[in-house]
Amino acid sequence: MQSFEIDKNDLLRIKDALEADDAALQELLSEFHASEIAIILEGLPQESRDRIINILPAEIASDVISEMDAESHPEKILENLDPEKRSEIVEELDYDDATDIISQLPEEQQNEILEDLDEEDASNIRTLLTYDEDTAGGLMNTQVIKVNLNASKKEALDTVIKLSEEMEEFYSIYVVDDLNKLLGTVSLKSIIKSKNSIKVADLIQTDYEYVTADTDQEEVARLISQYNLTSIPVVDEGMHLLGHITFDDVIDVLEEENTEDILKISGVSEDEELSGNWREAVKSRLPWLILNLMTAFLAASVIRYFGGTIAKLSIIAGYMTMIAGMGGNAATQSLAVTVRRISLNDLTDNQAYRTVLKEFTVGLINGAVTGLIVLAVAIFYDQNPMLGLVIFLAMTGNLIIAGIAGSAIPLFLKRVGIDPAVASSIIITTFTDVFGFLLLLGMASYFLL
Amino acid sequence: MQSFEIDKNDLLRIKDALEADDAALQELLSEFHASEIAIILEGLPQESRDRIINILPAEIASDVISEMDAESHPEKILENLDPEKRSEIVEELDYDDATDIISQLPEEQQNEILEDLDEEDASNIRTLLTYDEDTAGGLMNTQVIKVNLNASKKEALDTVIKLSEEMEEFYSIYVVDDLNKLLGTVSLKSIIKSKNSIKVADLIQTDYEYVTADTDQEEVARLISQYNLTSIPVVDEGMHLLGHITFDDVIDVLEEENTEDILKISGVSEDEELSGNWREAVKSRLPWLILNLMTAFLAASVIRYFGGTIAKLSIIAGYMTMIAGMGGNAATQSLAVTVRRISLNDLTDNQAYRTVLKEFTVGLINGAVTGLIVLAVAIFYDQNPMLGLVIFLAMTGNLIIAGIAGSAIPLFLKRVGIDPAVASSIIITTFTDVFGFLLLLGMASYFLL
Repeated sequence: MQSFEIDKNDLLRIKDALEADDAALQELLSEFHASEIAIILEGLPQESRDRIINILPAEIASDVISEMDAESHPEKILENLDPEKRSEIVEELDYDDATDIISQLPEEQQNEILEDLDEEDASNIRTLLTYDEDTAGGLMNTQVIKVNLNASKKEALDTVIKLSEEMEEFYSIYVVDDLNKLLGTVSLKSIIKSKNSIKVADLIQTDYEYVTADTDQEEVARLISQYNLTSIPVVDEGMHLLGHITFDDVIDVLEEENTEDILKISGVSEDEELSGNWREAVKSRLPWLILNLMTAFLAASVIRYFGGTIAKLSIIAGYMTMIAGMGGNAATQSLAVTVRRISLNDLTDNQAYRTVLKEFTVGLINGAVTGLIVLAVAIFYDQNPMLGLVIFLAMTGNLIIAGIAGSAIPLFLKRVGIDPAVASSIIITTFTDVFGFLLLLGMASYFLL
Repeated sequence: MQSFEIDKNDLLRIKDALEADDAALQELLSEFHASEIAIILEGLPQESRDRIINILPAEIASDVISEMDAESHPEKILENLDPEKRSEIVEELDYDDATDIISQLPEEQQNEILEDLDEEDASNIRTLLTYDEDTAGGLMNTQVIKVNLNASKKEALDTVIKLSEEMEEFYSIYVVDDLNKLLGTVSLKSIIKSKNSIKVADLIQTDYEYVTADTDQEEVARLISQYNLTSIPVVDEGMHLLGHITFDDVIDVLEEENTEDILKISGVSEDEELSGNWREAVKSRLPWLILNLMTAFLAASVIRYFGGTIAKLSIIAGYMTMIAGMGGNAATQSLAVTVRRISLNDLTDNQAYRTVLKEFTVGLINGAVTGLIVLAVAIFYDQNPMLGLVIFLAMTGNLIIAGIAGSAIPLFLKRVGIDPAVASSIIITTFTDVFGFLLLLGMASYFLL
């Protein structure tokens, strides 16, 4: 494969070169693609990042900065650059990338950077800064290829070539009227193939998807992924073309949303930055742990209520943790499958009902099988068949509750408009802890004492 | 937004139309995009699916079938179609989609379908069927736009227009020599802009990424996402161009890989189909639950060892579940963040060390804070400060273990080449259960009896 992964060796070579002079460093860096340099920078301290960006040509430096993960704070590099180099780099950035990075800086510094830019760039970025970053407006690029409905073949081709001059790649050609209203799209292929007398109006395709600037980024990702689009236009309420969003932005959105899902389901706040420091991690996770503690008090109060039973039958304490642990894990399994199905938009109402029914069945079977194993241990090791029977019933009952809670709760949350992934394992395991102890200790008190 | 989501109403109308004659059904279906019909079909029984595909024109039917989720088994529709209609539909499919679907059928039926196709289609699909479906070969499409290095501007344009005739969209133009060896790419824009005397050799870009047919699909997804590619060429060992993979295939791969991550981390086998029946779910989850049961016996044996302590101090039973539950949840948090970072390729070795250190700190703080809450309860509610102190220490200790186990174990697995997501919460919570009980009951026996 031609693509070279960054390996330890590369990192060591770059660290060595950081000790050497600019020329040597420059030469080494020229071996790497911008997105590879971005990964390297993410592993280096701030001063090395600043130095490397400083010696790279502006057009490569801008690619590197735009490829850096937002979590490694590329905006800090802009802060530290001298104004002239900074303007050069920002002007090389696509407007949407420039906006994403600048938006992370305090307002005063935003203005400082924007004042140094040429007027058109500054005004474009200022407009983009007004959109929420999780919406189509926040994702879109305002540089698009557009041709007028009444353009001739030659005019259209000239426009496309001229407008695409500044772009590395382009995907869609939008057709607009004199007032910049979006009317459709036209493919470059169809323009080339057409006779010279043809106008854009004869080639226009009017069957296209679009979004407005306030459309949520998840919806944008869904459309691009469902309809296999390379790009989707963004319009205002009057159908005026504002910009477009390309598939590569959507791949990033999907990764982000998937990270949120996996974090939320595990009881981590969705905005914990993966590479954040321990302060951020404590802030994001402690509230969930305290919530878990509150629910644990609930479970503990069930145990306390049966304190007499435990004192007389201390052998049951070991089985308690087994019933609760198995219930928690079975609930997490059911939850993960259900949340993922909801995320992938994979459920109709009728299927929701069948999903819960399926999880009931799975809980019944898995509970009975694992319950039988524990029953056997109680008979042969503890010589207490009645205890074994109680544990068998508690295990089966708790795994049924696990299956139902793990599927019904996220489905219910989805129905009432709450993100189902917040039904994290922490919430779900409350059910299995409380019911598990109630079942086991209740039956033990009744049958065994 | 122009795109119409499928709502309940649409489904009801289609169910009504299924009672009516073909003409009415046909008219209703014409309102929908192929990918929308695909979603509708996924919610209908097999006979309705067969009927709808039967009355759709072949070119739309093929789009619908290729858009259907593999889990809803579009190949079953092919099984039931009459051979002539089936051939029409399969010939409209892209080779990669046709291969994916046909590969799900028994070999006998595969041959039956392939024999009815024209020779070129059949031989292309036969070749694709030889690749593993999780590799670049299994993902790639063999229909590409390629031009010869020595073609003139006019020849190149003619070739591109002719080859793109059968494709809805195309992204890259590959440059090959007379032996079909890949030499580079050329953009349509540059061909159009060039003078008539120019040859492809003058315009070729030789800086491009590529993969071989056996490259893992995750690696393909990583390259396309890292370098923002619309497509990537697939070559054999001799650099001969076999086909290419487009960004939309990669979006599907990413969703698939993310589903696998979230399932594995929750102790569900990665190949459980989300929409599978209860038999598949039991098969996928029961082994993990039995594994969990084995580890629970380990934790229970710790409790059993301290049976005397519990009999004398039955109040401790409620706190046991608290310590174990909190440890399990903290470990799951640490695990989710770490596995996700590894998935996003977001960690160098040095950062791995720092990650474990960070999780240690987070465990220390979260353990101390929640431990203090429980200490307060023990003092004011149970009037037992010494018990409170033991619980405080056990909670802090267990959450430190949780942080370290949740981060170090997946990082270690990654290092030795095992998928870190198999360090599911089931494995990790064994540590927190066993150590939590050891800490709490050990200290309780020593200090409180």
